[in-house]
Amino acid sequence: MTINIIKNYLSLAPLFLVLLLTMLFSAPYANAQSKVYNWKLAYTWPTDFPLFTVSIKNMAKHAKELSNGRLNIIHESSTVHKKPLGIFDMVQSNEYQMGQSVGFYWQKKDVNTAILASVPFGMIAQERYGWFYHGGGKELTEKVYKKYGLKIFPSGNVGMQMGGWYKKEINSLEDLKGLKIRIPGLGGTIMQKIGVEPTNMQAGQLYKALESGELDAVEWANPGIDLNMKFYEHAKYYYTGWQEPAVELQFLVNEKAYNDLPKDLQKVLTTSMKLAAFEGFINYHHGNITKFKQLLTDHPDIKIRAFPTKVIRALAKETRKALEEIIKSGDPLTKEILNSQLNYLKDARQWTRFGDQAYLSNTVPLLPFK
Amino acid sequence: MTINIIKNYLSLAPLFLVLLLTMLFSAPYANAQSKVYNWKLAYTWPTDFPLFTVSIKNMAKHAKELSNGRLNIIHESSTVHKKPLGIFDMVQSNEYQMGQSVGFYWQKKDVNTAILASVPFGMIAQERYGWFYHGGGKELTEKVYKKYGLKIFPSGNVGMQMGGWYKKEINSLEDLKGLKIRIPGLGGTIMQKIGVEPTNMQAGQLYKALESGELDAVEWANPGIDLNMKFYEHAKYYYTGWQEPAVELQFLVNEKAYNDLPKDLQKVLTTSMKLAAFEGFINYHHGNITKFKQLLTDHPDIKIRAFPTKVIRALAKETRKALEEIIKSGDPLTKEILNSQLNYLKDARQWTRFGDQAYLSNTVPLLPFK
Repeated sequence: MTINIIKNYLSLAPLFLVLLLTMLFSAPYANAQSKVYNWKLAYTWPTDFPLFTVSIKNMAKHAKELSNGRLNIIHESSTVHKKPLGIFDMVQSNEYQMGQSVGFYWQKKDVNTAILASVPFGMIAQERYGWFYHGGGKELTEKVYKKYGLKIFPSGNVGMQMGGWYKKEINSLEDLKGLKIRIPGLGGTIMQKIGVEPTNMQAGQLYKALESGELDAVEWANPGIDLNMKFYEHAKYYYTGWQEPAVELQFLVNEKAYNDLPKDLQKVLTTSMKLAAFEGFINYHHGNITKFKQLLTDHPDIKIRAFPTKVIRALAKETRKALEEIIKSGDPLTKEILNSQLNYLKDARQWTRFGDQAYLSNTVPLLPFK
Repeated sequence: MTINIIKNYLSLAPLFLVLLLTMLFSAPYANAQSKVYNWKLAYTWPTDFPLFTVSIKNMAKHAKELSNGRLNIIHESSTVHKKPLGIFDMVQSNEYQMGQSVGFYWQKKDVNTAILASVPFGMIAQERYGWFYHGGGKELTEKVYKKYGLKIFPSGNVGMQMGGWYKKEINSLEDLKGLKIRIPGLGGTIMQKIGVEPTNMQAGQLYKALESGELDAVEWANPGIDLNMKFYEHAKYYYTGWQEPAVELQFLVNEKAYNDLPKDLQKVLTTSMKLAAFEGFINYHHGNITKFKQLLTDHPDIKIRAFPTKVIRALAKETRKALEEIIKSGDPLTKEILNSQLNYLKDARQWTRFGDQAYLSNTVPLLPFK
């Protein structure tokens, strides 16, 4: 009897072996391959803000598809979470595993975050991507955010910011003196030095303040999102830019949450973010093109102007002083970050000047065929 | 005894069930998830040609990592396959499942492939990406290649081409008459109309032909790859560009091979190509920046020049005529492709002009801090 049972078991041995091996090899695989990571992303903007949010939506879609559903990223606008300026903190605390915002908002925590976002008289978008991926920008950016337990990635460049909407034409430095202008951040600090009274107001109050004359000018963004603000109804002079030539939006990721992802999902996430940032950049560029056309077609009384050379020179001089102050107030990284950008800019601008810029100023675009 | 055996087997029933279920559910999954697709890609360039090949290497790396090794793309240079201009045919026949090249080379098969690559006096890189992804460019490009059983994707923009290396300065149309210039393609056709004798020569002969005076000028590419050719040793005048403002490299994929991929690997492949194209574009831009710096630093006797306005106007006039000829010789798509680009260009250039261009011509870049 005992012998028979043993015999029976022995005859089943190959089956046991198969079972054992199947379990050994498929169980951890199935486990790693089937666990779904549900992540939450919070962003600064309201729900209906397509040019800023397309890189978020694309990133989440890529991540889901590339992971066969294993990396599921739900995104929440500030219309929902009510903390547009709380993204940094909420990602740091892992309340949200990811965020999307812009570095300017964290300048009181760390001034380096602001000078990483964009610098007046600095690089344009294409130059900035060269610096970021090949000129040391990525490494410096990561160094700044690592202190806070955050990983950081590009989320799309919004391109050239315009200089703002003005009620009257600016022909000299004198014309700017005493003007009340909505211009926040470093641009405002610099403008104050040449006699402007910079103010900051809630977005919803700006139109009325222009209408009533409480404000003489408003610096907002670029055609992609300026169109909807209708500032042109009370300020016809639309000035070209100097203060924010290439702001890059940012994805913030909680470092611990990132490290807890299996390695293949880390690759899925970084790939999805990098591709979505590029898509966001091109999409924003297209948005600027179409909205600018609409602005000029529907409102032919808008006048595009560049600030006079004397104004630009004064602004550049004050920018230099303001950045010197920032270098003094910051840590050793501050100067390193600025000089890394400005050294790259020197070389990059030389090529921009004889490549695209020479072409743009020396040729006239072909017109469509009848 | 028999009862005992049955009992023994019955006691094993749950184990059998587990085994059966494990096999049932893991087998097809393991099968779909473990089949490795080994693809071959052929490209036009020699092995050591980093600025043109970085998008290939990155694409293959992304595909491998994102598929956990299931999509394995081996790439072969023309140093190996010996058919630099055979990429189209070799992908069409599925000898290679993929290729990387540039559309200019297929103009004798289909003139639409050439005008999709870049048009004189047309869009710059950033404008072109707007057109491609949001202005109908992608759909038109796919339509042209679909006829040949090929799928097509961007593989990185090489940016502004320079106008060429000239032995003497060009101050008038007269100065160009009778010059022997290496300038292939549409650029050559147009230059011929204003009195140049365009020639095409093997790359290896160009330096000697410039040295001996057999050639008066050579149009090649841009600083990224011009540096190594050393044309500056015999032709000091480096002219800014007009003829190829934004050539986009291309990935070609055999349609049948693509359709045979599981859906998740199709997503892996398209994601990998799109990201790698962006990386290639930025990497090439960086290459232009660093090589241009090296050119100007190591060879201070190089003189950068723009063609005089009269020359540019004559070239633009002949470009228009040449494109009208091409429209006549082509199919209905030819005009549609050209006008799709030129209509987009009209709007895009308006934004470029008041966005980046106004900034570039109205400001001076900040210099590094001491």
